[in-house]
Amino acid sequence: MAEKLTGAARDEALTDLREAGWAEVEGRDAIQKTFQFKNFTRAFGWMTQVAIVAEKMNHHPEWSNVYKTVEVTLATHDVDGLSPLDVELARKMDRLAG
Amino acid sequence: MAEKLTGAARDEALTDLREAGWAEVEGRDAIQKTFQFKNFTRAFGWMTQVAIVAEKMNHHPEWSNVYKTVEVTLATHDVDGLSPLDVELARKMDRLAG
Repeated sequence: MAEKLTGAARDEALTDLREAGWAEVEGRDAIQKTFQFKNFTRAFGWMTQVAIVAEKMNHHPEWSNVYKTVEVTLATHDVDGLSPLDVELARKMDRLAG
Repeated sequence: MAEKLTGAARDEALTDLREAGWAEVEGRDAIQKTFQFKNFTRAFGWMTQVAIVAEKMNHHPEWSNVYKTVEVTLATHDVDGLSPLDVELARKMDRLAG
């Protein structure tokens, strides 16, 4: 079971994530990022890679797609906020987006 | 190029779509429906089938996914409203959802 990110560990993770383009969601302990791709096939291809990773982690994103844009929100339901799982999935998403 | 759905053709299409669970979006000439699946893999598997169909039609949905739920909005950018392409994609989505 995931533990809620707090204190210095949370600050450190958020500093790294902000540098990678993630932002905290207003009014909610969650992070979000908008990914842009060349076209729909690239966007959905990335989503497919992320979907497989997410299913293996048993940790799933909230996301929306309009053509070549994908908006992602990450939070951990069980802890009602951010956990290390969100940091891990965010980093995997960034890596897959290359 | 798609033509905007108007008049009797629009009314007829919307009657059929309403029966299939689609609803008009308030303040926008578009339709929406929420699809529920058994789990994430089923939801994303359906999205993948739809993505291929949509790319072949060159007509893409606006959609968001949270675990086993997919919310879809359909409209045709070129006509700033509903076109026969939206009706066609809606029916294909319904068929693929079984």
